Amino acid sequence: MMVLSLFIIGHMGLFVYTQKGSITSIVVLPTTEIIEPYNKGAHPDLIEALIVSNEEGLSGYGSDRYTQSAIEKIRQATACPHAQVTFLAGGTQTNQVVIDALLQSYEGVIAAETGHIASHEAGAIEYSGHKVLTLPHHEGKLKAAEVKNYIETFFADANHEHMVFPGMVYISHPTEYGTLYTKEELTQLSTICHQYSIPLFLDGARLGYALAAETDLDLPTIAGLTDVFYIGGTKLGALIGEAVVFTKKNQPRNFVTIVKQHGALLAKGRVVGVQFDRFFTNNLYFDLGKKAIGMATQLKDILKEKGYRFFLESPTNQQFIVLENRQLERLAQAGLVYSFWEKFDQDHTVIRLATSWSTSQEDLDALRQLL
Amino acid sequence: MMVLSLFIIGHMGLFVYTQKGSITSIVVLPTTEIIEPYNKGAHPDLIEALIVSNEEGLSGYGSDRYTQSAIEKIRQATACPHAQVTFLAGGTQTNQVVIDALLQSYEGVIAAETGHIASHEAGAIEYSGHKVLTLPHHEGKLKAAEVKNYIETFFADANHEHMVFPGMVYISHPTEYGTLYTKEELTQLSTICHQYSIPLFLDGARLGYALAAETDLDLPTIAGLTDVFYIGGTKLGALIGEAVVFTKKNQPRNFVTIVKQHGALLAKGRVVGVQFDRFFTNNLYFDLGKKAIGMATQLKDILKEKGYRFFLESPTNQQFIVLENRQLERLAQAGLVYSFWEKFDQDHTVIRLATSWSTSQEDLDALRQLL
Amino acid sequence: MMVLSLFIIGHMGLFVYTQKGSITSIVVLPTTEIIEPYNKGAHPDLIEALIVSNEEGLSGYGSDRYTQSAIEKIRQATACPHAQVTFLAGGTQTNQVVIDALLQSYEGVIAAETGHIASHEAGAIEYSGHKVLTLPHHEGKLKAAEVKNYIETFFADANHEHMVFPGMVYISHPTEYGTLYTKEELTQLSTICHQYSIPLFLDGARLGYALAAETDLDLPTIAGLTDVFYIGGTKLGALIGEAVVFTKKNQPRNFVTIVKQHGALLAKGRVVGVQFDRFFTNNLYFDLGKKAIGMATQLKDILKEKGYRFFLESPTNQQFIVLENRQLERLAQAGLVYSFWEKFDQDHTVIRLATSWSTSQEDLDALRQLL
Amino acid sequence: MMVLSLFIIGHMGLFVYTQKGSITSIVVLPTTEIIEPYNKGAHPDLIEALIVSNEEGLSGYGSDRYTQSAIEKIRQATACPHAQVTFLAGGTQTNQVVIDALLQSYEGVIAAETGHIASHEAGAIEYSGHKVLTLPHHEGKLKAAEVKNYIETFFADANHEHMVFPGMVYISHPTEYGTLYTKEELTQLSTICHQYSIPLFLDGARLGYALAAETDLDLPTIAGLTDVFYIGGTKLGALIGEAVVFTKKNQPRNFVTIVKQHGALLAKGRVVGVQFDRFFTNNLYFDLGKKAIGMATQLKDILKEKGYRFFLESPTNQQFIVLENRQLERLAQAGLVYSFWEKFDQDHTVIRLATSWSTSQEDLDALRQLL
Repeated sequence: MMVLSLFIIGHMGLFVYTQKGSITSIVVLPTTEIIEPYNKGAHPDLIEALIVSNEEGLSGYGSDRYTQSAIEKIRQATACPHAQVTFLAGGTQTNQVVIDALLQSYEGVIAAETGHIASHEAGAIEYSGHKVLTLPHHEGKLKAAEVKNYIETFFADANHEHMVFPGMVYISHPTEYGTLYTKEELTQLSTICHQYSIPLFLDGARLGYALAAETDLDLPTIAGLTDVFYIGGTKLGALIGEAVVFTKKNQPRNFVTIVKQHGALLAKGRVVGVQFDRFFTNNLYFDLGKKAIGMATQLKDILKEKGYRFFLESPTNQQFIVLENRQLERLAQAGLVYSFWEKFDQDHTVIRLATSWSTSQEDLDALRQLL
Repeated sequence: MMVLSLFIIGHMGLFVYTQKGSITSIVVLPTTEIIEPYNKGAHPDLIEALIVSNEEGLSGYGSDRYTQSAIEKIRQATACPHAQVTFLAGGTQTNQVVIDALLQSYEGVIAAETGHIASHEAGAIEYSGHKVLTLPHHEGKLKAAEVKNYIETFFADANHEHMVFPGMVYISHPTEYGTLYTKEELTQLSTICHQYSIPLFLDGARLGYALAAETDLDLPTIAGLTDVFYIGGTKLGALIGEAVVFTKKNQPRNFVTIVKQHGALLAKGRVVGVQFDRFFTNNLYFDLGKKAIGMATQLKDILKEKGYRFFLESPTNQQFIVLENRQLERLAQAGLVYSFWEKFDQDHTVIRLATSWSTSQEDLDALRQLL
Repeated sequence: MMVLSLFIIGHMGLFVYTQKGSITSIVVLPTTEIIEPYNKGAHPDLIEALIVSNEEGLSGYGSDRYTQSAIEKIRQATACPHAQVTFLAGGTQTNQVVIDALLQSYEGVIAAETGHIASHEAGAIEYSGHKVLTLPHHEGKLKAAEVKNYIETFFADANHEHMVFPGMVYISHPTEYGTLYTKEELTQLSTICHQYSIPLFLDGARLGYALAAETDLDLPTIAGLTDVFYIGGTKLGALIGEAVVFTKKNQPRNFVTIVKQHGALLAKGRVVGVQFDRFFTNNLYFDLGKKAIGMATQLKDILKEKGYRFFLESPTNQQFIVLENRQLERLAQAGLVYSFWEKFDQDHTVIRLATSWSTSQEDLDALRQLL
Repeated sequence: MMVLSLFIIGHMGLFVYTQKGSITSIVVLPTTEIIEPYNKGAHPDLIEALIVSNEEGLSGYGSDRYTQSAIEKIRQATACPHAQVTFLAGGTQTNQVVIDALLQSYEGVIAAETGHIASHEAGAIEYSGHKVLTLPHHEGKLKAAEVKNYIETFFADANHEHMVFPGMVYISHPTEYGTLYTKEELTQLSTICHQYSIPLFLDGARLGYALAAETDLDLPTIAGLTDVFYIGGTKLGALIGEAVVFTKKNQPRNFVTIVKQHGALLAKGRVVGVQFDRFFTNNLYFDLGKKAIGMATQLKDILKEKGYRFFLESPTNQQFIVLENRQLERLAQAGLVYSFWEKFDQDHTVIRLATSWSTSQEDLDALRQLL
């Protein structure tokens, strides 16, 4: 039996189990937006690293040698020798800890209305006392000019002391629409942020997929232009783990205590340290991204070949297509279960298809037959 | 090279690396209070379970079949068929989520002054808005009569509307002093809590060691007498993971969202589910506890044989001894590095020695030679 | 010397002091959005009530006889004999306490994007841990159909457990644009809220001005259709004070303690109780509203007579007009200092003029001359 | 009819109404700890100042000329020309805002276990996310040596990153036991705080009574030795109002926004500004304190004369006496209704009697007869 992990489409997650080409069962999952890269455990190399180090006596809370080694390797990969690196468990937790740690109590964080923190984190940012100040998105991205205008308008407003101060800019890269910032765009955002002494935070939950796509933004450039970002592990093949990188010697004092206070300090920090140490050995992290992008290219070819219409041009692992509702019905009857990403118009629907570090050629072949 | 994990003594963590009986290096760790069971990764059986399930396509956020199986097994082991079970990553996180989820905003949680939430969680409970209402400890335990008196005095106080309402009773079992509640004591606490409609929460970070000790409190009894408790995984040999058990159909509505809001929802919930599924297969969880208690019995024998004086009688894996300061100095010169658990008097010091699921016979033999 | 309180225009507050028709000085205030009804102290009748009761020995925290009497009178005025009434100091505080007290931790409050809680309360709602879920405004109002659609879409979303639950609907009446809900509109909102067991909260900071305008919503109808609302005192002539009214026996348990915990419990509760007792004696509260509406009618006549263009039709004390930028310049040169409420288009600007309980005929006459 | 405000005894508030020497009625109040100075409205001079300024057009949020004048007068009275002064409504609110504004998220505030923030503020400090770190009290006071020891032990603890950092020292002056710090004691506390860069915060809810007692601590000395303190208005005869004074140019940035975010910004800031402007005109604030201390001296004389035993030596307006339980019963039968401050021993009870700015000679004469 084989799992077609690609059939996690739209807002609802769906796994189509097939055997020898025929569909045997379909499992409807409660959520899918972020599930797709989660359907396998960890990449075998990471599992192996955990096994190899398992019997070794190591100290806790991230003071072990693997964690230290991972930090060094990330410093090298980011060309940021003074980077301050901390490993946390998951994305929402990381966003909450970083944003709460950097903001003053009366400050909020600027984000696109489609930003993960604005929509799909159950109010984790507000729980820590901060408002998410949303701006319109442009295929998932913030426009630097609009951020600038927002900040300028805020400080020009005679009432601004009665309002939430913009204290940080949050972007995701790739965005929730699979799109990427260009070096030019990130530079503009960075310039505005520094002009107003507001940190720029890049949510890299899917960063590996961005780095492997056609882009002029590599890790050192991202480290240079942001104040803090994180390198997503969970969506790139780790069991758990995200690496927070403060790039400007700006890690808040007593950050360990802040992490602990948020319930986010892992006793066996080694679990994440060992995986990131392996991620940044022999380019594994980058290779996994490349594999998924390669699969996404194939996926795009299949979709083009079959005449599907793209909702937007995404250079990463997430692809969005527009289907006629009747076409969607037919596909559903043929075995494709679907759900809405969003309505396109009266007669059309946008759905999402995504590849990941674990997508196989078999997955794609099966999909080709079905479409 | 061998790690003498036992030499994590007192408040400061110390690992003494030895080779063929001679000490090769000593690593001072920043903290030790809870480190000791963390110095190895995971029990091999848990690692194996992760490997076996790794390639299997599973849905996220704890909706996978291993997690469901683990829940069923915990329902059986607790003889609580309607138990509501959720898996979280670590102890402080679990305490924060459970306490915040159950308390009204104006309520606090009663705990012994030595309780983990009162002292070693960096204010995680206060971060969620709640006061920890401390009572004196008796070898780490709360006295039911004192809890009763506190609650009665509170409600009798004409000013009580200006004070923090007691909204929960928190106990740890084993306590931070390695001691255990008796069935009689837990029944008394349970009776008081139910009389005042206040949930009783048992922190079982080290629960496996309690269940394996000489005790009249088994899992079903604990489930029956408490409203919520958790079964500690991290200290018993898991990579990460604690199992929260609501025993009275009293899990707060939309608990998943509460967990997510605290940044505690694991994308790959399978990581913990798989481990607990294995923990509760063929009694592994109980066996690991038994092994540590067996080692602790040997440790006690060694200590008695060598004439050491016990600070208190602990039936579990943590042992506390009182040393003359000069004796401690001599041991230090002989290779034993130490730090204070607490001062006993002018001339004496209390230190802690602990066994765990990973303590080996070699560890104990090496210790015997050194003492 | 006379104060032209009307010249508080746009976002920036401005007081033009005149003497015998000529402007003597202009004071620029840091903020004006809500200042206008604050430029005088209290209505003389309220001051008198404070003087008369001043020497009387009374108990604290709202347990005095004036507060009790005020509660009884509000119960009568709202035709809600079981209403639970609490007096607080100001509007932002009231919104924070009520919303935090009624919401579950994982719930947010739906509001128009122009709602006071969404824009001008410095993140007081987020400080208490809750997200403000904004919907588009229609001249300051929420549309029932859009609220219904938001809630239905939320629960239909397979991802909704990862999102902030809508736990309350907040409206202001009059709105920030001076507009009013009709009985039909409020009934629709009420129906949706009850259908989803979500409380409907009406912010009545300016309620007196709504009740005195042409409207089919009187106090008993508002009490019947909402779950909680407040009767604004500060903007209607009190020194401080707002009356929170829970209409469905739905005041949260231990509400006094919740109020205290928010730092909002007044030691000398009498200060507000005495004023509201007087507000609801011989219809003072309603008469003050009527006076302001009468003045607003005159203001509208002056503006129409002078040919000004209205931005929207407001039946209450706040009036919004659209000026050509050059016209605004001329008025500025003639002594009218201005600031933007909002840009209308390239060549036009919206400004706000407001009357209040303390506006005098002289104020209006002076304004007529200046325009 | 006359109110014997003195008969607010112990934890429960009691007003004994008498007419021509005979008791006509007894009103039991829900709370009394802090009620006593609240039973009258405001001092007539403050009322008069409110009346005189009432018709004057003034800007809001504390930008009015009375507030500015009050700030100047407080700068003079404290001999602190750069003092930053903000007026808030009440004591709990003030403690919450100041402590939350100055602490880092991971810091707590050291206080005596009897400190108001530790016991009678309904968890307002914890609501803002911070732990109150309690130390034993010595007649209500903190001992500098114990504070020093606490801080040193904290930083020496290898686990301290897992604990709440001490980020501030809070004292009340007078304390909850009516006692006063000496200049020597305050200097010691100040020295320790500055040594560890931790602000020293003095809660002056009853400060006027301290300044009028026999003491070597005047306002300038207090301003010099603390980092922030507040001058209590409500307990000294204001309707509402406390003056927060930052003495070291250390008011947090955007403090107005922080105040607003806590729901504590008064629209008509003039209400408090006018009263404090009057408080600090012709020494009114000091005179009211002196009057109460004069009455307290008489009260002590009466108590001594009648042979009552003092629980402790209090130099301020609060007096604590120890009564035999049988004696208390007799007094109760004679009309004195009582409640416990605390148990002294099996046979004795401590009760509190307090004078205030509004205590009259008649009150004392009536009391003398009754005792």
